[in-house]
Amino acid sequence: MAHIQVPPGVPGIRSLLQARPETAGPITDLAQILLHAPNTLSRGERELIAAYVSALNDCTFCRTSHAAIAACHLDDESLVASVVQSPETAAISPKLKALLGIAGRVQLSGRAVRSEDIEWARREGATDTEIHDTVLIAAAFCMFNRYVDGLAAWTPSDAEGYRERARNVAEHGYRL
Amino acid sequence: MAHIQVPPGVPGIRSLLQARPETAGPITDLAQILLHAPNTLSRGERELIAAYVSALNDCTFCRTSHAAIAACHLDDESLVASVVQSPETAAISPKLKALLGIAGRVQLSGRAVRSEDIEWARREGATDTEIHDTVLIAAAFCMFNRYVDGLAAWTPSDAEGYRERARNVAEHGYRL
Repeated sequence: MAHIQVPPGVPGIRSLLQARPETAGPITDLAQILLHAPNTLSRGERELIAAYVSALNDCTFCRTSHAAIAACHLDDESLVASVVQSPETAAISPKLKALLGIAGRVQLSGRAVRSEDIEWARREGATDTEIHDTVLIAAAFCMFNRYVDGLAAWTPSDAEGYRERARNVAEHGYRL
Repeated sequence: MAHIQVPPGVPGIRSLLQARPETAGPITDLAQILLHAPNTLSRGERELIAAYVSALNDCTFCRTSHAAIAACHLDDESLVASVVQSPETAAISPKLKALLGIAGRVQLSGRAVRSEDIEWARREGATDTEIHDTVLIAAAFCMFNRYVDGLAAWTPSDAEGYRERARNVAEHGYRL
Protein backbone atom coordinates (compact mmCIF):
# COMPACT_ATOMS: atom_id res chain seq x y z
CA MET A 1 0.00 0.00 0.00
CA ALA A 2 1.25 3.44 -0.85
CA HIS A 3 2.44 5.71 1.99
CA ILE A 4 -0.20 8.33 1.06
CA GLN A 5 -3.74 8.14 -0.21
CA VAL A 6 -3.82 7.64 -4.00
CA PRO A 7 -6.54 6.55 -6.46
CA PRO A 8 -7.01 2.77 -6.01
CA GLY A 9 -5.93 0.38 -8.77
CA VAL A 10 -3.70 2.89 -10.59
CA PRO A 11 -0.14 1.58 -11.05
CA GLY A 12 3.10 3.26 -10.08
CA ILE A 13 3.86 6.88 -10.85
CA ARG A 14 0.45 7.41 -12.46
CA SER A 15 -1.24 7.07 -9.06
CA LEU A 16 1.02 9.83 -7.72
CA LEU A 17 0.42 12.07 -10.73
CA GLN A 18 -3.33 11.72 -10.23
CA ALA A 19 -3.00 12.40 -6.49
CA ARG A 20 -1.10 15.68 -7.10
CA PRO A 21 -2.10 17.08 -10.53
CA GLU A 22 -0.18 20.35 -9.99
CA THR A 23 3.20 18.61 -10.18
CA ALA A 24 1.97 16.04 -12.72
CA GLY A 25 2.08 18.64 -15.52
CA PRO A 26 5.83 19.42 -15.53
CA ILE A 27 6.75 15.81 -14.68
CA THR A 28 4.81 14.50 -17.68
CA ASP A 29 6.17 17.25 -19.94
CA LEU A 30 9.73 16.42 -18.92
CA ALA A 31 9.23 12.71 -19.72
CA GLN A 32 7.62 13.57 -23.05
CA ILE A 33 10.44 15.90 -24.14
CA LEU A 34 13.27 13.65 -22.95
CA LEU A 35 11.90 10.29 -24.11
CA HIS A 36 9.36 10.81 -26.89
CA ALA A 37 9.98 14.14 -28.68
CA PRO A 38 12.16 14.16 -31.84
CA ASN A 39 15.83 13.64 -31.02
CA THR A 40 18.99 12.37 -32.71
CA LEU A 41 18.91 9.59 -30.10
CA SER A 42 16.12 7.20 -31.06
CA ARG A 43 13.20 6.61 -28.71
CA GLY A 44 14.46 3.07 -28.16
CA GLU A 45 17.91 4.33 -27.15
CA ARG A 46 16.47 6.86 -24.70
CA GLU A 47 14.14 4.28 -23.15
CA LEU A 48 17.15 1.95 -22.71
CA ILE A 49 18.90 4.67 -20.70
CA ALA A 50 15.75 5.07 -18.59
CA ALA A 51 15.38 1.31 -17.99
CA TYR A 52 19.09 0.89 -17.20
CA VAL A 53 19.17 3.68 -14.59
CA SER A 54 15.92 2.39 -13.06
CA ALA A 55 17.51 -1.06 -12.75
CA LEU A 56 20.58 0.45 -11.03
CA ASN A 57 18.20 2.24 -8.64
CA ASP A 58 16.38 -1.06 -8.05
CA CYS A 59 13.03 0.50 -9.03
CA THR A 60 10.95 -2.41 -10.32
CA PHE A 61 8.03 -0.33 -11.58
CA CYS A 62 10.16 2.05 -13.69
CA ARG A 63 12.57 -0.65 -14.87
CA THR A 64 9.75 -2.92 -16.05
CA SER A 65 7.77 -0.05 -17.59
CA HIS A 66 10.64 1.47 -19.55
CA ALA A 67 12.14 -1.89 -20.56
CA ALA A 68 8.72 -2.73 -22.04
CA ILE A 69 8.55 0.62 -23.88
CA ALA A 70 12.13 0.17 -25.17
CA ALA A 71 11.18 -3.33 -26.40
CA CYS A 72 8.21 -1.85 -28.31
CA HIS A 73 10.42 0.68 -30.06
CA LEU A 74 13.23 -1.80 -30.77
CA ASP A 75 10.97 -4.81 -31.33
CA ASP A 76 13.36 -6.97 -29.28
CA GLU A 77 12.72 -7.93 -25.65
CA SER A 78 15.87 -10.00 -25.26
CA LEU A 79 18.14 -7.18 -26.48
CA VAL A 80 16.56 -4.87 -23.90
CA ALA A 81 17.07 -7.44 -21.14
CA SER A 82 20.74 -7.81 -22.08
CA VAL A 83 21.32 -4.04 -22.09
CA VAL A 84 19.68 -3.54 -18.71
CA GLN A 85 21.73 -6.35 -17.22
CA SER A 86 25.07 -5.63 -18.83
CA PRO A 87 25.40 -2.80 -21.36
CA GLU A 88 29.15 -3.43 -21.85
CA THR A 89 28.52 -6.79 -23.55
CA ALA A 90 25.17 -6.05 -25.25
CA ALA A 91 24.72 -5.85 -29.03
CA ILE A 92 24.39 -2.05 -29.20
CA SER A 93 26.39 0.73 -30.85
CA PRO A 94 29.68 1.93 -29.31
CA LYS A 95 28.08 5.37 -28.89
CA LEU A 96 25.16 4.01 -26.89
CA LYS A 97 27.58 1.99 -24.73
CA ALA A 98 29.48 5.18 -23.93
CA LEU A 99 26.25 7.07 -23.16
CA LEU A 100 25.08 4.25 -20.86
CA GLY A 101 28.49 4.52 -19.19
CA ILE A 102 27.78 8.20 -18.46
CA ALA A 103 24.26 7.33 -17.25
CA GLY A 104 25.70 4.78 -14.83
CA ARG A 105 28.06 7.41 -13.39
CA VAL A 106 25.19 9.90 -13.00
CA GLN A 107 23.20 7.27 -11.09
CA LEU A 108 26.02 7.12 -8.54
CA SER A 109 26.34 10.90 -8.22
CA GLY A 110 26.73 13.97 -10.40
CA ARG A 111 30.28 14.23 -9.11
CA ALA A 112 31.05 10.69 -10.27
CA VAL A 113 31.00 11.74 -13.94
CA ARG A 114 34.61 12.09 -15.12
CA SER A 115 36.05 13.95 -18.10
CA GLU A 116 37.12 10.60 -19.58
CA ASP A 117 33.50 9.37 -19.52
CA ILE A 118 32.52 12.38 -21.64
CA GLU A 119 35.56 12.05 -23.92
CA TRP A 120 34.71 8.39 -24.59
CA ALA A 121 31.20 9.38 -25.72
CA ARG A 122 32.60 12.15 -27.94
CA ARG A 123 35.07 9.75 -29.56
CA GLU A 124 32.11 7.52 -30.43
CA GLY A 125 30.36 10.47 -32.08
CA ALA A 126 28.05 11.79 -29.34
CA THR A 127 27.04 15.46 -29.68
CA ASP A 128 26.69 18.01 -26.89
CA THR A 129 22.91 17.65 -26.95
CA GLU A 130 23.13 13.86 -26.79
CA ILE A 131 25.49 14.07 -23.80
CA HIS A 132 23.21 16.67 -22.17
CA ASP A 133 20.11 14.56 -22.71
CA THR A 134 21.80 11.39 -21.44
CA VAL A 135 22.82 13.14 -18.20
CA LEU A 136 19.34 14.65 -17.79
CA ILE A 137 17.50 11.38 -18.55
CA ALA A 138 19.68 9.57 -16.00
CA ALA A 139 19.19 12.37 -13.45
CA ALA A 140 15.42 12.47 -14.10
CA PHE A 141 15.16 8.74 -13.42
CA CYS A 142 17.01 9.24 -10.15
CA MET A 143 14.01 11.48 -9.38
CA PHE A 144 11.22 9.29 -10.84
CA ASN A 145 12.58 6.13 -9.18
CA ARG A 146 12.77 7.80 -5.77
CA TYR A 147 9.31 9.34 -6.24
CA VAL A 148 7.70 5.95 -6.99
CA ASP A 149 9.47 3.88 -4.33
CA GLY A 150 9.77 6.68 -1.75
CA LEU A 151 5.96 6.78 -1.63
CA ALA A 152 5.63 3.00 -2.08
CA ALA A 153 3.42 3.34 -5.15
CA TRP A 154 1.74 0.14 -6.33
CA THR A 155 4.01 -2.05 -8.51
CA PRO A 156 1.90 -4.62 -10.40
CA SER A 157 3.55 -7.97 -11.10
CA ASP A 158 1.84 -9.02 -14.36
CA ALA A 159 4.15 -8.54 -17.36
CA GLU A 160 1.24 -8.29 -19.81
CA GLY A 161 -0.10 -5.17 -18.11
CA TYR A 162 3.25 -3.43 -18.59
CA ARG A 163 3.36 -4.54 -22.27
CA GLU A 164 -0.11 -3.17 -22.96
CA ARG A 165 0.68 0.19 -21.39
CA ALA A 166 4.04 0.24 -23.22
CA ARG A 167 2.34 -0.13 -26.63
CA ASN A 168 0.19 2.90 -25.82
CA VAL A 169 3.11 5.05 -24.63
CA ALA A 170 5.36 3.97 -27.52
CA GLU A 171 2.70 5.07 -29.98
CA HIS A 172 1.14 8.12 -28.33
CA GLY A 173 3.78 9.38 -25.86
CA TYR A 174 3.49 10.32 -22.19
CA ARG A 175 0.70 12.88 -22.32
CA LEU A 176 -1.99 10.15 -22.29
CA MET B 1 34.61 24.19 -17.45
CA ALA B 2 31.32 22.50 -18.19
CA HIS B 3 31.36 19.19 -20.09
CA ILE B 4 29.22 20.70 -22.88
CA GLN B 5 29.07 24.13 -24.48
CA VAL B 6 26.95 26.53 -22.40
CA PRO B 7 26.55 30.33 -22.40
CA PRO B 8 29.69 31.77 -20.73
CA GLY B 9 29.46 33.44 -17.31
CA VAL B 10 26.07 31.94 -16.40
CA PRO B 11 26.20 30.05 -13.08
CA GLY B 12 25.07 26.51 -12.36
CA ILE B 13 21.80 25.09 -13.57
CA ARG B 14 20.87 28.32 -15.35
CA SER B 15 23.63 27.75 -17.92
CA LEU B 16 22.13 24.31 -18.67
CA LEU B 17 18.60 25.68 -18.89
CA GLN B 18 19.78 28.26 -21.41
CA ALA B 19 21.68 25.63 -23.40
CA ARG B 20 18.56 23.40 -23.73
CA PRO B 21 15.43 25.59 -23.52
CA GLU B 22 13.07 22.71 -24.39
CA THR B 23 13.72 20.95 -21.07
CA ALA B 24 14.12 24.23 -19.17
CA GLY B 25 10.35 24.81 -19.22
CA PRO B 26 9.20 21.79 -17.21
CA ILE B 27 12.27 21.93 -14.93
CA THR B 28 11.55 25.54 -14.01
CA ASP B 29 7.83 24.85 -13.60
CA LEU B 30 8.58 21.95 -11.26
CA ALA B 31 10.84 24.11 -9.07
CA GLN B 32 8.26 26.89 -9.02
CA ILE B 33 5.37 24.60 -7.95
CA LEU B 34 7.40 22.65 -5.39
CA LEU B 35 9.31 25.53 -3.80
CA HIS B 36 7.48 28.80 -4.42
CA ALA B 37 3.75 28.17 -5.04
CA PRO B 38 1.33 28.39 -2.08
CA ASN B 39 1.68 25.38 0.23
CA THR B 40 1.02 24.49 3.88
CA LEU B 41 4.80 24.05 4.14
CA SER B 42 6.35 27.51 4.14
CA ARG B 43 8.78 28.54 1.40
CA GLY B 44 11.55 28.57 4.00
CA GLU B 45 10.76 24.99 5.07
CA ARG B 46 10.74 23.75 1.48
CA GLU B 47 14.02 25.49 0.68
CA LEU B 48 15.57 23.88 3.77
CA ILE B 49 14.62 20.44 2.40
CA ALA B 50 16.20 21.42 -0.94
CA ALA B 51 19.41 22.70 0.69
CA TYR B 52 19.67 19.67 3.00
CA VAL B 53 19.33 17.11 0.19
CA SER B 54 21.79 19.09 -1.97
CA ALA B 55 24.29 18.97 0.90
CA LEU B 56 23.84 15.20 1.22
CA ASN B 57 24.48 14.93 -2.54
CA ASP B 58 27.56 17.13 -2.13
CA CYS B 59 26.28 19.59 -4.75
CA THR B 60 27.89 22.90 -3.82
CA PHE B 61 25.98 25.02 -6.34
CA CYS B 62 22.51 23.82 -5.27
CA ARG B 63 23.34 23.69 -1.55
CA THR B 64 24.67 27.25 -1.56
CA SER B 65 21.84 28.57 -3.75
CA HIS B 66 18.99 27.04 -1.77
CA ALA B 67 20.57 27.71 1.62
CA ALA B 68 20.73 31.38 0.58
CA ILE B 69 17.08 31.35 -0.56
CA ALA B 70 16.01 29.63 2.67
CA ALA B 71 17.93 32.28 4.65
CA CYS B 72 16.02 35.02 2.78
CA HIS B 73 12.66 33.48 3.64
CA LEU B 74 13.59 32.71 7.26
CA ASP B 75 15.80 35.78 7.77
CA ASP B 76 18.36 33.63 9.61
CA GLU B 77 21.56 32.37 7.95
CA SER B 78 22.86 30.57 11.03
CA LEU B 79 19.62 28.60 11.51
CA VAL B 80 19.87 27.44 7.88
CA ALA B 81 23.50 26.41 8.35
CA SER B 82 22.60 24.39 11.45
CA VAL B 83 19.72 22.61 9.67
CA VAL B 84 21.84 21.69 6.66
CA GLN B 85 24.57 20.36 8.90
CA SER B 86 22.48 18.53 11.48
CA PRO B 87 18.68 18.73 11.29
CA GLU B 88 18.24 16.49 14.36
CA THR B 89 19.67 19.12 16.69
CA ALA B 90 18.52 22.30 14.89
CA ALA B 91 15.95 24.73 16.32
CA ILE B 92 13.10 23.70 14.00
CA SER B 93 9.65 22.18 14.53
CA PRO B 94 9.29 18.43 15.27
CA LYS B 95 7.27 18.14 12.04
CA LEU B 96 10.04 19.63 9.91
CA LYS B 97 12.58 17.34 11.62
CA ALA B 98 10.49 14.33 10.66
CA LEU B 99 10.10 15.59 7.07
CA LEU B 100 13.86 16.15 6.80
CA GLY B 101 14.25 12.58 8.09
CA ILE B 102 12.14 11.37 5.14
CA ALA B 103 14.12 13.57 2.73
CA GLY B 104 17.37 12.05 3.98
CA ARG B 105 16.03 8.53 3.33
CA VAL B 106 14.88 9.52 -0.19
CA GLN B 107 18.39 10.85 -0.92
CA LEU B 108 19.75 7.35 -0.22
CA SER B 109 17.13 5.57 -2.33
CA GLY B 110 13.36 5.43 -2.78
CA ARG B 111 13.46 1.99 -1.21
CA ALA B 112 15.20 3.36 1.89
CA VAL B 113 12.01 5.14 3.05
CA ARG B 114 10.43 3.03 5.80
CA SER B 115 6.87 3.01 7.12
CA GLU B 116 8.20 4.26 10.45
CA ASP B 117 9.69 7.33 8.76
CA ILE B 118 6.23 8.18 7.40
CA GLU B 119 4.50 7.38 10.72
CA TRP B 120 6.87 9.69 12.58
CA ALA B 121 5.94 12.57 10.24
CA ARG B 122 2.22 11.81 10.65
CA ARG B 123 2.54 11.79 14.44
CA GLU B 124 4.07 15.27 14.19
CA GLY B 125 1.07 16.45 12.16
CA ALA B 126 2.28 16.10 8.54
CA THR B 127 -0.49 15.72 5.94
CA ASP B 128 -0.47 13.45 2.89
CA THR B 129 0.33 16.40 0.63
CA GLU B 130 3.20 17.52 2.88
CA ILE B 131 4.64 13.99 2.86
CA HIS B 132 4.16 13.78 -0.92
CA ASP B 133 5.83 17.14 -1.50
CA THR B 134 8.75 16.32 0.81
CA VAL B 135 9.44 13.10 -1.10
CA LEU B 136 9.14 14.86 -4.45
CA ILE B 137 11.32 17.83 -3.42
CA ALA B 138 14.00 15.42 -2.18
CA ALA B 139 13.70 13.31 -5.35
CA ALA B 140 13.77 16.40 -7.57
CA PHE B 141 17.01 17.57 -5.94
CA CYS B 142 18.51 14.15 -6.60
CA MET B 143 17.83 15.11 -10.24
CA PHE B 144 18.91 18.79 -10.10
CA ASN B 145 22.13 17.98 -8.19
CA ARG B 146 23.10 15.26 -10.71
CA TYR B 147 22.21 17.54 -13.63
CA VAL B 148 24.44 20.36 -12.39
CA ASP B 149 27.45 18.29 -11.31
CA GLY B 150 27.04 15.58 -13.98
CA LEU B 151 27.63 18.28 -16.62
CA ALA B 152 30.18 20.15 -14.45
CA ALA B 153 28.23 23.42 -14.59
CA TRP B 154 30.07 26.48 -13.28
CA THR B 155 29.87 26.84 -9.48
CA PRO B 156 30.86 30.40 -8.49
CA SER B 157 32.59 30.81 -5.14
CA ASP B 158 31.49 34.32 -4.08
CA ALA B 159 28.81 34.15 -1.37
CA GLU B 160 27.44 37.61 -2.24
CA GLY B 161 26.48 36.50 -5.76
CA TYR B 162 24.38 33.68 -4.30
CA ARG B 163 22.75 36.09 -1.80
CA GLU B 164 21.82 38.55 -4.53
CA ARG B 165 20.26 35.87 -6.73
CA ALA B 166 18.51 34.44 -3.64
CA ARG B 167 16.80 37.76 -2.90
CA ASN B 168 15.41 37.79 -6.45
CA VAL B 169 14.18 34.19 -6.34
CA ALA B 170 12.72 34.58 -2.82
CA GLU B 171 10.70 37.55 -4.02
CA HIS B 172 9.77 36.64 -7.60
CA GLY B 173 10.08 32.84 -7.79
CA TYR B 174 11.86 30.60 -10.28
CA ARG B 175 10.32 31.79 -13.53
CA LEU B 176 12.76 34.74 -13.76
